[in-house]
Amino acid sequence: MALPFDDRGLAYGDGLFETVLVRDGQPLLWEYHMARLRQGVERLSLPLPDFEAFDRLPAQCGPGLRVLKLMVTRGSGGRGYRPPGSAELRWRWTASAFQPASRRWFEGVDVRCCELRLGIQPRLAGIKHLARLENVLARQEWQDDAIAEGLLCDSEGHLVEATAMNLIWYRQGRFETPLLDRCGVKGTLLSAMNDDIELHWVRAGLETLHQADAVWLLNSVQGVWPIRRLDDASGKCLQRWPPAFDSPLQQMAHGRLGYPLNPDD
Amino acid sequence: MALPFDDRGLAYGDGLFETVLVRDGQPLLWEYHMARLRQGVERLSLPLPDFEAFDRLPAQCGPGLRVLKLMVTRGSGGRGYRPPGSAELRWRWTASAFQPASRRWFEGVDVRCCELRLGIQPRLAGIKHLARLENVLARQEWQDDAIAEGLLCDSEGHLVEATAMNLIWYRQGRFETPLLDRCGVKGTLLSAMNDDIELHWVRAGLETLHQADAVWLLNSVQGVWPIRRLDDASGKCLQRWPPAFDSPLQQMAHGRLGYPLNPDD
Repeated sequence: MALPFDDRGLAYGDGLFETVLVRDGQPLLWEYHMARLRQGVERLSLPLPDFEAFDRLPAQCGPGLRVLKLMVTRGSGGRGYRPPGSAELRWRWTASAFQPASRRWFEGVDVRCCELRLGIQPRLAGIKHLARLENVLARQEWQDDAIAEGLLCDSEGHLVEATAMNLIWYRQGRFETPLLDRCGVKGTLLSAMNDDIELHWVRAGLETLHQADAVWLLNSVQGVWPIRRLDDASGKCLQRWPPAFDSPLQQMAHGRLGYPLNPDD
Repeated sequence: MALPFDDRGLAYGDGLFETVLVRDGQPLLWEYHMARLRQGVERLSLPLPDFEAFDRLPAQCGPGLRVLKLMVTRGSGGRGYRPPGSAELRWRWTASAFQPASRRWFEGVDVRCCELRLGIQPRLAGIKHLARLENVLARQEWQDDAIAEGLLCDSEGHLVEATAMNLIWYRQGRFETPLLDRCGVKGTLLSAMNDDIELHWVRAGLETLHQADAVWLLNSVQGVWPIRRLDDASGKCLQRWPPAFDSPLQQMAHGRLGYPLNPDD
């Protein structure tokens, strides 16, 4: 399971990863994960991986709830940043036991705004590449376990995502989510929700949330968390919402993931 | 020399590196490399490395001209992007035989403008972190070996650097170089030149080069290359300069690196 020192994933972040929820050997949102991986392969001009080999991984993850982490890198070689003429893709995977933070589904979470602004880089937007240092820096901004996530804006002040989750809100009768064409990761659960409900992709600043009736965070392993309180970076409360767990969004998402639809399930 | 799959340098680009020119066991610009590494350690809030152990590495590189590559990562652990409470730094190094592209010192080089624009991220600007996917994408833009480097602007159109070198030009009687406070890597040879000659740090667009009498690329392993021709991303020639190798800049820089000061050396 080790990688050589000269692996380009390590040297430059020159690769991609996916973290997939797997229940008793059955992957959830698999087609969305593989679609994003394919998109990343195209964007980075990586050699085409053996997707059929990937399809056989979930069955090898073992019983119960697991998270499969799959990583592909451009392998070794090249001169500095320049990729080798014929790169040989390297891939590795692990499966770990997983417990979602289930109390957050119905109690909701408190979140903060991060000071870090994401750099605008359309060439890397949406895909799940290995160069995630911005996310690491953003996640370092707070230590308080009562704060579940941090919201991120881009360098022009537009809402993008949370450090490891996407963001959806309900405003003026519709579900809205930030455009992810210039930075951020397009989560697979978000893509599934785009197919399941009518989702409006918007360029919006933080102030837009003042008009939101409800706000949620979501990803493909944790499901959907309603936000009940938003703080600024200094800890001052900006806004509160009643916990909005009986929404069609959470119903559809948890239906996709096999998670409970209400607190009594 | 392998790293585990769960190393955070591999997973997220959560680490730093330096590539140091070493001649017969003597490092060049060592204090600048260690100063940049220290700055990176502070910016990423990494645990303090054992710098005394690093000081002993050049002597172990072997005879002749070598490049020492030193990498430090935050090691393993943490929950997702969140670093572990007490991270254990991991470091690795290699030394490789090295031959600089010496013809370029006096013949000069042809370069192009890259289409990719660097994202603006002050928190990561200047340091040599492992999340270098923008540089990889930029270096993929051309295959023609006659093009030595590609110039990069930020998302607002300001000149920053080349994919693996810094940029200095001479204009209206002074040496100028792009500000590196919002993106780009602050090269150690550039920092040394800032100490050796009067260097003006400017926010400038590509059009500024039209007024330049001479333009150079530089880094701590290759030395200084005069630019003789600049193409746009489609290959159209934007500008030519006479090869400016008899400049105080190259003299000072090559003096630092022990490289020849003129073609007859």
